[in-house]
Amino acid sequence: MTRLSVPEDDLFGLTNLPYGVYSVPGRSPRVGTRFGDFVVDLCLLLDDPTFAAPSLNPFMAQGRGRWDDVRSRLRSALSGDVPDEAVHAVSDVTLHLPFEVADYVDFYASEHHASNLGRLFRPDSPEPLMPNWKHLPVGYHGRSASVVVSGTDIVRPSGQRLPAGATAPVFGPSTRLDIEAEVGFIVGRGNPMGSPIPASSADDHLFGVVLFNDWSARDIQAWEYVPLGPNLGKSFASTVSPWVVPLAALDAARVPVPPQAPSVLPYLEMSPPWGLDISLEVEWNGEVVSRPPYAAMYWSPAQMLAHLTVNGAPTRTGDLFASGTVSGPSRHERGAFIELTWGGSEPVTVAGRSRTFLEDGDEVVLRATAPGVGGTRIGFGEARGRILPAVH
Amino acid sequence: MTRLSVPEDDLFGLTNLPYGVYSVPGRSPRVGTRFGDFVVDLCLLLDDPTFAAPSLNPFMAQGRGRWDDVRSRLRSALSGDVPDEAVHAVSDVTLHLPFEVADYVDFYASEHHASNLGRLFRPDSPEPLMPNWKHLPVGYHGRSASVVVSGTDIVRPSGQRLPAGATAPVFGPSTRLDIEAEVGFIVGRGNPMGSPIPASSADDHLFGVVLFNDWSARDIQAWEYVPLGPNLGKSFASTVSPWVVPLAALDAARVPVPPQAPSVLPYLEMSPPWGLDISLEVEWNGEVVSRPPYAAMYWSPAQMLAHLTVNGAPTRTGDLFASGTVSGPSRHERGAFIELTWGGSEPVTVAGRSRTFLEDGDEVVLRATAPGVGGTRIGFGEARGRILPAVH
Repeated sequence: MTRLSVPEDDLFGLTNLPYGVYSVPGRSPRVGTRFGDFVVDLCLLLDDPTFAAPSLNPFMAQGRGRWDDVRSRLRSALSGDVPDEAVHAVSDVTLHLPFEVADYVDFYASEHHASNLGRLFRPDSPEPLMPNWKHLPVGYHGRSASVVVSGTDIVRPSGQRLPAGATAPVFGPSTRLDIEAEVGFIVGRGNPMGSPIPASSADDHLFGVVLFNDWSARDIQAWEYVPLGPNLGKSFASTVSPWVVPLAALDAARVPVPPQAPSVLPYLEMSPPWGLDISLEVEWNGEVVSRPPYAAMYWSPAQMLAHLTVNGAPTRTGDLFASGTVSGPSRHERGAFIELTWGGSEPVTVAGRSRTFLEDGDEVVLRATAPGVGGTRIGFGEARGRILPAVH
Repeated sequence: MTRLSVPEDDLFGLTNLPYGVYSVPGRSPRVGTRFGDFVVDLCLLLDDPTFAAPSLNPFMAQGRGRWDDVRSRLRSALSGDVPDEAVHAVSDVTLHLPFEVADYVDFYASEHHASNLGRLFRPDSPEPLMPNWKHLPVGYHGRSASVVVSGTDIVRPSGQRLPAGATAPVFGPSTRLDIEAEVGFIVGRGNPMGSPIPASSADDHLFGVVLFNDWSARDIQAWEYVPLGPNLGKSFASTVSPWVVPLAALDAARVPVPPQAPSVLPYLEMSPPWGLDISLEVEWNGEVVSRPPYAAMYWSPAQMLAHLTVNGAPTRTGDLFASGTVSGPSRHERGAFIELTWGGSEPVTVAGRSRTFLEDGDEVVLRATAPGVGGTRIGFGEARGRILPAVH
């Protein structure tokens, strides 16, 4: 038995305790928590076979009461002596996609991002926001199969794009490959078909939070997206961070969302809608180029979930919904390169070079922290990906 | 042992043999085939535990060689004596969703439908088709969790809509609830991330075909769909027929798609692209109101699959992609009521009443047949749903 020594102010201290799926050579993936620079096996620590699974889904399906109970037992167990065989150095393990993704929906919840994209994609339109934007959290379904864990290489997608001035598209590798720095929310327990989730009940359904990079091929997207929305411009890959931060760890990070005017319809009302004070950073080839503030997001996670289900649509354990690009009001708070470089017309300097969109070999890392209880800070780990050349 | 007597010209004769998942009281769902008016248990008939599963996914994952082999053994076995305990009357069984839906994508592959919808949704636009429409099969991801089997009641969705002349939306039950008569294609074996499926290889991946009703709330859809596409207007429910007709049963139904001009990019080229001569019918409260011809569809299933994966997106066993509304050139070949009644302005008479969109209590049934080998016809069964009142 060992007493694990982790400083109180560690980003992965006792106030965080995120869940992930790890493996060590020769052993099957199973659930662990990160505590300081350790990964602790939950099946061994808590003597609970739920955590012998290679995904969080069985645990998530057990619901809020179980989540709270396990979190409480975990804090106690990690405050005492821990079986040696349950402990690994984080550098010794492989981290896997922590959950099986059921349906995946991407929202568009930042007013700054939606306004910027409106100006860039529809320059002739007098209003950057569509008339619906402040009445409902706009979102669309994306591809669950291409959600990958941090560290997975991203192959540059090929597809159709319409060159400037052309009337017919050409095919080839995307020339405007971009990121979207987002926050993802995981549904632990869903709702049956026909029974919407009220915004006030979101806490009973939301299990946890991850970082999310919605890689985006802007040239493919611009050509395909009218009238049915993004498809191939997004579906090739999305990267999630390996540690799912429990919603319960973010109690101290709750902040009201910015004022919502005009007032929302009753099914979206909350008093007040809570956002999360998560501070993101976007690192491009080792240099931090942006610090998007999640607290600036217009629509709250509970409002997104209420909207998603208000028509009776069911959600399931493992449903993932992402916020859309997190962008703040100032330039170096923008979470996508198309915004940061204003469609490529205002390059940024990265590692001494003038840059717009992603080149082969580039690496992007999203990181974030948020306030934890007792003045601590909660770490989210990272969502990392490197661009490989197109295959054709 | 029994010799099952099924006429050669039965819609579920030896040239069809679709796969489904059935149960009888007190027994777990498992895989069967429909032969005439019988459901035959495949686990017992072929002595093969693959078919003891409550879904087709394990069998589909085994790939084309296995599909061909099982189909061949099935034809032999049903031509001889069959164990009594393997046979049920179709009226004695409950039919279940035949497969677990992985990702679901809905295309928009009928030129007639896309042109009609363009005129109805964008009346001020000079061209009904968007510039991209003839260059790529436009599609979007939908909600997998709300795909239900024929016979499941459909609760009228509530949501936001913008009343005519209003500047702010109201909330309530959809007032323009509609159907979309479609054909769905099921991926039996997918492709790994980064390895697109060439159009010429689609036969190795496509397992079978179902009927598909993409229930659509036109008022919700019209307000929400710009700029990221349909979401709540579609995500409440989609109905599939319970019998998956193997692609192999449709060899005699293959027809060239209508001429494609301008010519398509190389990754979409086939010589020629094959469509399917499936004749659909839409029954509304017992009256056939439309006969949409699948042979009129512009984009072929193989082209849709090639497009879906050309950016490296992975597909999985159980992926479902639907064709979009099947509409032919003439009025009573239109597969959606918004087209059939021209946005509600040209009602049709159903059971003696003038009708536009769906009322509570209405029932819609999609049916279809296609040519089988040897002059037979292949039946698809039905996709049936009745509208229940909104819950709020």
